[in-house]
Amino acid sequence: MTEVGYYNGALGPLSEMSVPMNDRAVYYGDGVYEIVLARAGKFFGLAEHLERFYANLKLMQINFAMSAQELTGELTKVLAHATPDPAHTEQMIYWQVSRGTAPRKHAYPAATVKPNLMITVRPYSVTDMGKKRDKLITMEDTRFLHCNIKTLNLVPNVMAAQAAATMGCDEAVLHRGGVVTECSKSNLAILVGGTLRTAPLSNLILAGITRKQLLDRCAQLSVPVCEEAFTLDEMFNADEIIVTGTGHMCMGVDVIDGIKVGGRASELLSALQRACLEYYLQETQ
Amino acid sequence: MTEVGYYNGALGPLSEMSVPMNDRAVYYGDGVYEIVLARAGKFFGLAEHLERFYANLKLMQINFAMSAQELTGELTKVLAHATPDPAHTEQMIYWQVSRGTAPRKHAYPAATVKPNLMITVRPYSVTDMGKKRDKLITMEDTRFLHCNIKTLNLVPNVMAAQAAATMGCDEAVLHRGGVVTECSKSNLAILVGGTLRTAPLSNLILAGITRKQLLDRCAQLSVPVCEEAFTLDEMFNADEIIVTGTGHMCMGVDVIDGIKVGGRASELLSALQRACLEYYLQETQ
Repeated sequence: MTEVGYYNGALGPLSEMSVPMNDRAVYYGDGVYEIVLARAGKFFGLAEHLERFYANLKLMQINFAMSAQELTGELTKVLAHATPDPAHTEQMIYWQVSRGTAPRKHAYPAATVKPNLMITVRPYSVTDMGKKRDKLITMEDTRFLHCNIKTLNLVPNVMAAQAAATMGCDEAVLHRGGVVTECSKSNLAILVGGTLRTAPLSNLILAGITRKQLLDRCAQLSVPVCEEAFTLDEMFNADEIIVTGTGHMCMGVDVIDGIKVGGRASELLSALQRACLEYYLQETQ
Repeated sequence: MTEVGYYNGALGPLSEMSVPMNDRAVYYGDGVYEIVLARAGKFFGLAEHLERFYANLKLMQINFAMSAQELTGELTKVLAHATPDPAHTEQMIYWQVSRGTAPRKHAYPAATVKPNLMITVRPYSVTDMGKKRDKLITMEDTRFLHCNIKTLNLVPNVMAAQAAATMGCDEAVLHRGGVVTECSKSNLAILVGGTLRTAPLSNLILAGITRKQLLDRCAQLSVPVCEEAFTLDEMFNADEIIVTGTGHMCMGVDVIDGIKVGGRASELLSALQRACLEYYLQETQ
């Protein structure tokens, strides 16, 4: 089987797997998640994802007993059960931990209630960064003030992604009163005069792993980095706009709200994309 | 059995029921819910809850095919399967509809994917409003800007309810920069100089059914109503503070953040509570 589901140790075809009705993920979205890619059985950036995951669990006060090493063992086991699909270059491993299974009541259940681990593996192909540029829309950021935590509360993200899809676009740029935060499921950076600029880490954005990898590549290529939020105007006038995320790495952008943007530092953009891709291939070798 | 679960037509003991891993409720919280009480088999305020539910589905662009009449039929059927528990005076009926079951992808799935209906029934006893007053804490409102929709995205509500419970309190008053919105799972009103004041309907609060019932009782008793937001200071200095919600109707308050509050219009508060209770008993007769 190419699509596998896992729940607290039980494994099976994803479409046949289920979770208890009383899992707090089902009615509160009370949990956190991560997504990593694997190429030929090798995880990409797993250590960074695990580090963020355990930091997020702590912020949520979810006492997940499994160590990072044990969790890696479970992820590896589930990945091994999923047959790679020859039509795809990668596999996407998703996992979430909810606070546990208990009758619905807002405050935390008793300490005896154990968190639930759910894992899925599906075939995936990373978008070829050299082949296309993304088209974006802009929207007011209506999300909560815990965007640093990768929770299962994703209704505003779903709404934004759907708004983009309806317009035939790839992503929605979110802003608070004209100041850009990030996208519905990606971080955002701009290139201006040879400097890469992106919003600083705060409760308004997710500390993206690909964002971090891009900043590391900037250091490697001696590209100056400025972690300061930028406005919509600054984005529209930037030399390049870059959408970063696990599923597509560092995508260039050519249209936002129907307006032609970027394309004025394509060599630097390509150099950063190549460096990201090389790092990816090296890490998954 | 006293606790019953239902999922798309299947019925069973709540603790044995499950939902598919690919239900969008599980990983996005992509759905809306309602809670009503029933006394001796009679729903309380069901028409109002159904009206809000279908309005919420529309705001979420969830195309739930079942009519209000058909849904009432399903709720009635599930309630009939739940044996009342003699230790409780009421039954609590919870239901949620998610966007459907599909592989995880932010934008909406194909129109052929049908929404999922989940229902649970559990024994419940309405808090006796005359017997106690609530103790509250105050917290910054960190929720998203869709609080008018009763979505399954409730992490900030869970956090606030837990903060209150940790302090031995009943509820958390949420405020945006000192302006009160509502509580973690209730609306909030104050009595000042004989007038009942509560935040106006907007995307910052839920249009509570009990809030509406209290406003109706005010009209009945010729108590003036002012739908204008109030500050924390105005709340601390109010004659009475009233927490309204389906599970506890209209609770008086005697302590907020450890400070003694209210108690200066207890006759008016009692009159409103009696009127709410009479309406409840009459509607469920």
